[in-house]
Formats: sequence, structure tokens, C-alpha cells
Amino acid sequence: MFKLIKISINEILGLEGVIMSDGFKGLSGKDIISVLDLSKEDFENIFKLADEYRVNGYRDVLRGRVLSVAFFEPSTRTRLSFESAMHRLGGSVIGFSSEEATSVAKGEKFIDTVRMLDSYSDVIVIRHKFEGAAKLAAEVAEHPVINAGDGRNEHPTQAMIDIYTILKLKSNVSNLIIGVMGDLKYARVVNSLLYAFTIFKPKKVYLISHPLLKLRDEAKKFIASQGLNFEEVSDINLVLNELDVLYVTRVQKERFPDPIEYEKVKNAYKLTADVLRKCKEDLIILHPLPRVDELERSVDSTKHAAYFKQASLGVPLRAALLTLILGGY
Amino acid sequence: MFKLIKISINEILGLEGVIMSDGFKGLSGKDIISVLDLSKEDFENIFKLADEYRVNGYRDVLRGRVLSVAFFEPSTRTRLSFESAMHRLGGSVIGFSSEEATSVAKGEKFIDTVRMLDSYSDVIVIRHKFEGAAKLAAEVAEHPVINAGDGRNEHPTQAMIDIYTILKLKSNVSNLIIGVMGDLKYARVVNSLLYAFTIFKPKKVYLISHPLLKLRDEAKKFIASQGLNFEEVSDINLVLNELDVLYVTRVQKERFPDPIEYEKVKNAYKLTADVLRKCKEDLIILHPLPRVDELERSVDSTKHAAYFKQASLGVPLRAALLTLILGGY
Amino acid sequence: MFKLIKISINEILGLEGVIMSDGFKGLSGKDIISVLDLSKEDFENIFKLADEYRVNGYRDVLRGRVLSVAFFEPSTRTRLSFESAMHRLGGSVIGFSSEEATSVAKGEKFIDTVRMLDSYSDVIVIRHKFEGAAKLAAEVAEHPVINAGDGRNEHPTQAMIDIYTILKLKSNVSNLIIGVMGDLKYARVVNSLLYAFTIFKPKKVYLISHPLLKLRDEAKKFIASQGLNFEEVSDINLVLNELDVLYVTRVQKERFPDPIEYEKVKNAYKLTADVLRKCKEDLIILHPLPRVDELERSVDSTKHAAYFKQASLGVPLRAALLTLILGGY
Repeated sequence: MFKLIKISINEILGLEGVIMSDGFKGLSGKDIISVLDLSKEDFENIFKLADEYRVNGYRDVLRGRVLSVAFFEPSTRTRLSFESAMHRLGGSVIGFSSEEATSVAKGEKFIDTVRMLDSYSDVIVIRHKFEGAAKLAAEVAEHPVINAGDGRNEHPTQAMIDIYTILKLKSNVSNLIIGVMGDLKYARVVNSLLYAFTIFKPKKVYLISHPLLKLRDEAKKFIASQGLNFEEVSDINLVLNELDVLYVTRVQKERFPDPIEYEKVKNAYKLTADVLRKCKEDLIILHPLPRVDELERSVDSTKHAAYFKQASLGVPLRAALLTLILGGY
Repeated sequence: MFKLIKISINEILGLEGVIMSDGFKGLSGKDIISVLDLSKEDFENIFKLADEYRVNGYRDVLRGRVLSVAFFEPSTRTRLSFESAMHRLGGSVIGFSSEEATSVAKGEKFIDTVRMLDSYSDVIVIRHKFEGAAKLAAEVAEHPVINAGDGRNEHPTQAMIDIYTILKLKSNVSNLIIGVMGDLKYARVVNSLLYAFTIFKPKKVYLISHPLLKLRDEAKKFIASQGLNFEEVSDINLVLNELDVLYVTRVQKERFPDPIEYEKVKNAYKLTADVLRKCKEDLIILHPLPRVDELERSVDSTKHAAYFKQASLGVPLRAALLTLILGGY
Repeated sequence: MFKLIKISINEILGLEGVIMSDGFKGLSGKDIISVLDLSKEDFENIFKLADEYRVNGYRDVLRGRVLSVAFFEPSTRTRLSFESAMHRLGGSVIGFSSEEATSVAKGEKFIDTVRMLDSYSDVIVIRHKFEGAAKLAAEVAEHPVINAGDGRNEHPTQAMIDIYTILKLKSNVSNLIIGVMGDLKYARVVNSLLYAFTIFKPKKVYLISHPLLKLRDEAKKFIASQGLNFEEVSDINLVLNELDVLYVTRVQKERFPDPIEYEKVKNAYKLTADVLRKCKEDLIILHPLPRVDELERSVDSTKHAAYFKQASLGVPLRAALLTLILGGY
């Protein structure tokens, strides 16, 4: 009666008559540092619960639970969608969204900060400018840690949203030809997305970028070793008419070692309604947002624009993930 | 049973035996950009529910609902009173309170930010330094948008609190002589208040200001066209003994194009206990707060000071507004 | 039925069969400005309820209640542990965590800010760089005010956690020899801890500091007048082998009038695993955290390190305090 907090996933979903696979339990207590921490079944279970929330609404399953947002780098979308997800489920949020106004200003060590949040909350969502920060946090914390972006390394929950969106709009991934365009060198969402593609295996992936922004060799070797069928091209026009999905990423100034290098490339891979005249009828365009100049507003009113739909799936997807990670406690 | 979120206003208030007019439904889903978006009956319905909350306490009618606070300009009073109101009703809050520490820093476009909040929450409260920002947001968002101040244009919920306070303390507006003093040119609260007066029609309004800070012509023409009985004066002492209500506004440095202009006028319309010796016995003084120098602390201990009472009505008023806007969903 | 908010402490704890002393009522509505505002019985009642929460979990006893965090100085630990405590009990939080992004930037007076929070919430937790700020706030506010650090004066809830930790690990205080090392001149936690020792009376207290950072005369006179048995020493090695508890405090740069003075002393009282080789088997080391250089990471893995345990008691302790202060309403 006073243990509302501990309602199990089976009880919750049982009410709706959904039969749960045992895979649901597999995510309980798990850290999400990389897309590769998840099996295909994990993904599918998360998507199933996200569907459930979208169709039947959210429920108070995380009442009394506390989420920490530890955003050492500023963010709005990722942070607010996690916060909204937690609130929709009846839970609460504490944390900070930049290094300022925190003890970090007093010189507190990263590990001590993580340990503090670990003793104040049930799950930590972390963003940090250094690669590996989320992994380190997960080693220190007893509660689960979710990587919301660590340097140029990974951003796994964004990739979950990306795959989920493709599945909702295209029903499958394996029959698709998918272009990934923009900054493939510094963008962590691209790493996570390509790793997710090694699990969901599209028919073909085109990596479309300026030579200065090509996917790094380590990542290239890894996706090749997993049998992902991909090809690098330097001009969108060479492949546009083949694509079922075009994933555009921002050219992020802050990822560049040199601002001059940034100015040179920022307009090279800009998508406009005009460019799209040569594409397939049912091409969908995705973008993790926020965008700068690489995706012109003229595209918004085309039937290809799917990035607002994609953004709107962030809350149910993250709500599902939080439920499964915390649900078994 | 699981639909607590969707309890209707009639159910809620029915419990207290209050009979609701159909006007209650009229606000459901509505944007509040200008005072002029509301009818007199809308105002009265909001006041009635605010009374109900003050007398019988708040109830959990917005459980599971999420409010976005999008404060592109810093604020404490307006933001925190909306947040408190939402929490009192069982709801949650996400958002940001300055442009820093948000994706705005990464160059995100205003419209994209609004669209994001729209897909993460059920209602957006917005403050922005540009006139028309709230209106633009309302055009983009599917959920209701509440203007919490857009440039020098409007701040409608402050005017609701102002009218509500006058009604609580004076029982009516139509028999009153009301002075509005201070910055009438740049203060958005003054615009909203005068527009509200075109609905609640005081006997007479004195606009008391330095010539540099007189009400702008557009506003003057509008209130005249609505039959508001007003007169401009440049010295409080000329009319003080006639006033039933004196509304004082801050001279806001940030509204001035030129700091020298500011220094010249800031002390010209300063209210002190001494000045008040010539006023009516039952004059009440209102101020939207925060104040700077225009309202001396010596006034606080006089029987005329009603601005703390006014401030305390912010939470129940905004709670009523949020309930009515979200209640019909 | 709709008055869940007003459940009394006796009802809550009655459910668990705990018999409450009348002392529980004594804290209802009380300001906590200094440790000396509390009797030994108050401390014990707070500890008892904190134990209850740790053993049997938190309960929704503050649903509908709102806590204001008014942090004019940045902080993470204290603020977030209060926030977590409030959320665990079903309550909500509003507020700000630095002077920026608030009306303070518009020149709002401290007292007006306090009055605002007082009318928006049920309890105010305040941190400010000036001594006496919390006391002033308590004089203005009708709702209870909790001092979360005012200048170099006091930080009473930290001292509650400190005493609570010692009691949990050592069962008593009165038989212990306790060293307090580091900045005894500028650290407010030291003041509050020593005042708490005048209530819990350890066998002996060694005040271990550099001559520049000795306890101030007023404090020394006060603890002497209360019969606290203490001695000042300038070298940890002189007393280490006698100690049951060693309390280490940070040398805070921001408390120093002169940065050169800071550089001179910062490494003088640094604790390392090596230093600890001469200590008692069951010595416990406490630290309010965050630390800078005075407590080396090498100490963390020794059996003496109790500061993470201490930190983890912050939430239940503050949850108990909030319950008792708000419980009687």
C-alpha cells in the first residue's frame, strides 16, 4: 500500500493486457554508456514500452524516485526531454546544467560529484565534454548511469530515438538505403547511430561528408568488422535519388580545434528544399537538432521533413528507458 | 481510475458545491498573449477559481501535466510564482531561465526551441525581450502559450493579479479613481493594466509620468477608443488627494535606449511615506515588484501599502489560470 | 480525504508503530538559524525520524508542499540534498542557485526577495555570503527559514549530519576524543560543529590548525563558557594517536582576504594515507565535502574514511528535519 514505488513492470503493463518478454528484466539496473551495451531485444523492449506510453498515456510508475541530471556541458533538448519523461512518470529531478553555480566551481573532483549524486538519487544522466566521462561515472556510481553525450564519443539515447523513428515511419531498417551527412568526424550522434546500424543492419549506408569531416578510422574499422554495408561519398547529389532515409547532422563549431577550419566547411553540406527535388517520393529526413545552417527552414514544409516527429519521440523513448532501468528495483 | 489527470473542472469544484458557469470551458486550450484575449467573464471565472483555491486549498488537478518555463529574459517573481502554482496543483515544471546554459547558446532558432518545448510539455510560459515573441510562439505551438512579458508590449497575468487585488480590497473597479505612475512608456505591465481597465472601466484613470516617459500614442489612442476616462498629469501632488488606488511602476534601466536618460528620470517619481500625508484615508498602493528606488521602504509600514498582498495573490491567480487552460483536456 | 497534505507526524509514524515523544511537535514551524536553536532532544528526534526513513523508506508526507531554495552563493551538495529530501517526501522545489538569472540582477532588495519566496512556499532554505542573512530572512518570513550557510557564521544542518554520523558509527559522542583540523577561522561548518559539541559534549576536542587559521576568540570564549573540554594544537602528529574521530575541513580560497595568504597555508594540513599510519585502529575521518587538496584520494580506500557515509546521511537527515518543521501544519 505504501510501496507504490515498487510496482513491477509486469503489474503495470499487465493492466493493459500486454504480455512482457523476460527481456524487460534485463535492463533493470543497467548502465547505458554505449549503444553497444544493448542487444536488439533490449532495443525492441524499449520501443514496445514507448509505444505503450504513446498509445495509453504515461503512468505514475516512478513516484518517489529521483533522477539526477549532471550536465557539465550545456544542453536543452536532451536534458529537458529526460526531465519531462521523469515527471510524466511521477518521478522527480535534481541536478545542474552547467559547471557554473555548482561546487565544481569550488574545485570539486568529478568523481566526488558523481558519488554525491549517486547517494542523492536513483539514476544519473550525464553529459560531459570528455570522452569516457560517462564510463568513469558508471564505475564509481552504484546506481545506473545514462550517457547523454561524452565528448565526441557517444550519445546512445539519441540513436535509440533515431532507430525508433525510422521503425515508426518505415516499419523496418533492413530494407533501407540510408545516407548520413554532415560532420561524421566529431559528432557523437553519428557514432552511436552507426553502432546501432550494426545491430539493425540497413541494406546500405552512405557516409556523406567533406573530406575534413570523414568518419574516423577506428569507427570505420569497427562497423566494417560488424558487416555493415557502407560507402563513403563526398557529394549528396551522387546518391540522393537512392536514399530512403537521409540523416543530417550539425557541423558543431565547438567540436573544431580551429575556427577557420569550421568556416570553410560549414556551408558545404547544406540541405535545402531545392536540393530535395531529385529525391525519392518517400524519402524521410532526420536530424538530431538543434540545427544551425545545414538544414534550411525551406525543408520544414516538405513532406520529407521527419525531424520534428523524431524530436517528439524523445520523451516516450526516454520514459520507457527510465522505466525499464528503474523498474526492477 | 488511472485517468486522474483528466478530472474536469466541474468535478473538482462540484465537490465544494460551487456551480460553474459555462465560461469555465471557454479558457480551455486558449493562448494568453494579451489581456484583450480575455472577456470580462473570463477574468471573473479565473478570480472565482483563485478564490476557491485560497479558501479551500489547492488540489491535485494537474498531476502528470508538465509546464515549460521559457524565460529568455531573467525573472524570479513571475517564473517562481508560475512554478509554485503548477506544483501546488500536483504538476511538474521543466525549462530554463536565461539564454545561457541552453541550446540557444548553440545557435538554435527561437521557433525550433518553441517546437521542442511544445512536444515536451502541456503549456508554455514565455518571457522574451522582443515584442511579439509570445505571439509567434503561440502560432508555432499546438499547446497553449502564456505571455509572461514580451519586450515593452504586454504582461497579461500581472494585470490579472492587479485587477484581482483591487477587487479583493475595494470590491469594485468602476467607482474608483486610479493613478498609474512611473514609466508609462516602456513598462509592459502598464500596457496590460490599461487594457484591463478598458474592460473593468474605472471612474477615472490618471496617467502620472515624466514627459519623457508618457504613455505611447498607440496605447493612448486605443484606450480612448474604448471609452476609458483618463487624463495625463506630470505631478503626483496635483491628483494624490483624489486617488483610491495608486499603481506605481519601476523605472527599468534596461528599457532605456540611453543610460543618461535613465539617470535623469529615476528619482523624479519616487514615493515616500512623507508624500503620502496628503492622500485619502483608504488609498491603496500597488506595485508589480521588484522595485528599485521609486517606492521607498518607509511606505511599507503605512496602511496604504498593498503590494505584498498583491504579490501573494500571484500564485492562486496563476494556479486558477493554469487549471482553466489545462482543465478541459 | 483531500487533506492528505495535513497528515500529522503521529499518523505517519503511527503506521510503523513508532511512539513519538512530544518533542516532535516542538520543531513545527521553527526557524533553524543556529545549532543553538535546538535542544539535545530536538537533535535526537530528528535522528530518530532519519533512522525511520532509512530503515522503512520515505513517505509522501509533504505532498503539495513547496520548498524554496534561495542560494545567493553557489552550492551543489547542500542544495541538491535538500531538493532530493523534499522530492523523496512528495514535495516540490522552486528557487534559484546563484544571484544571476534572478531579479536580484534587477536590483531587488534582499528583504523583498525573501518576502516573495515566503508567499510562494512553505519553507525557505537560504545560503548567503553575509553573516546574519539567514537571521534577517527569518525575521521577515512568516514560514520557517533554514540556514544553509551564512558567511563564515554557521551551517547548522551540516553539523546535524556530522553528529548523526558520529552517533551511527560510534554509538555515542561523550566518550570520544575528536580532532577538528583545517580552517577553523573562516569555516562556518566548524562553528556549527563546535556549538553542537557544547550540546553533545565529547570527552575532549583538539582544535588543529595553522596559527593563521585558529578558531576566532568569540567562538573560543563561547565553547569554553559551555564547559567544552578543548585544546589548540598546531600539528596533527602531536595528537593523532589519541583521536577517535578526525574532522577535516577545506581551506576555502573564497574565505581569504588575500590570495597569497591562501597559497601559504593550503598544503599545511593535508591528510594522506601515509599520515594515517600512526592513528588508532578505529579512527573515523569525516569531511563536509567538497574537498580540495586537504584530503588526499589515497585516504578513500582506508577503513578510516567515513566521509562518503557522512554525505549519504544528508538526505535522510534533511528529510527528517523538513518533516518535523512542516509536519505540524
